Amino acid sequence: MDRIPILRMGEFLLVTIQVDMHDKLALTLQDDLAERIRKTAARGVLIDISSLDIVDSFIGRMISTISGLSRIMDAETVVVGMQPAVAITLVELGLTLPGVRTALDVERGMSLLRESLDTR
Amino acid sequence: MDRIPILRMGEFLLVTIQVDMHDKLALTLQDDLAERIRKTAARGVLIDISSLDIVDSFIGRMISTISGLSRIMDAETVVVGMQPAVAITLVELGLTLPGVRTALDVERGMSLLRESLDTR
Repeated sequence: MDRIPILRMGEFLLVTIQVDMHDKLALTLQDDLAERIRKTAARGVLIDISSLDIVDSFIGRMISTISGLSRIMDAETVVVGMQPAVAITLVELGLTLPGVRTALDVERGMSLLRESLDTR
Repeated sequence: MDRIPILRMGEFLLVTIQVDMHDKLALTLQDDLAERIRKTAARGVLIDISSLDIVDSFIGRMISTISGLSRIMDAETVVVGMQPAVAITLVELGLTLPGVRTALDVERGMSLLRESLDTR
């Protein structure tokens, strides 16, 4: 697989990460996402990581980069579906994903995005 | 990876297939999906295959099985995001996915499901 699909859901974009990320795949995802945000004028990005059993510093950094990139393009990022074990590991490693919002599942993530758009 | 994530979007479920399917993964997906349809009383299942460059008879059969299973449980299935090359191959192979509806992307798939629920 050479790219991760980005699905459009109304004014939001959904990315489901299922495979091991490597440098090139992560860069392609960032490029694709920036392009899609521009093209669709998306207001939010949901990153689903429910399939990931392990989140290392590489993935953590990628999520932070995507979040920063989205913010510059006027879209908010929410990470959804984090497994409890992943959350524990992240905290233990000191990777607290600053500036990145999280929600338990896609539905809650969407509500969160909708609320934060309404209060702008 | 040992299972494909199933995301809930309102009254529908979304499955994004990104990895090569093998027997065990396909069986796990069918079991998980049946369980999730029961638990969430979902009315529709969207299967996104936009990352797949190749759809062979194994994947074709899996999609048909999921569609049949969903129908029995009162949920409709829509396959979304099929690449043009995949569509051509399927037709050439005689795999016409009988009884399975398709849409160009997730948004259109959702509209299709909503419409068909409204007209019931």
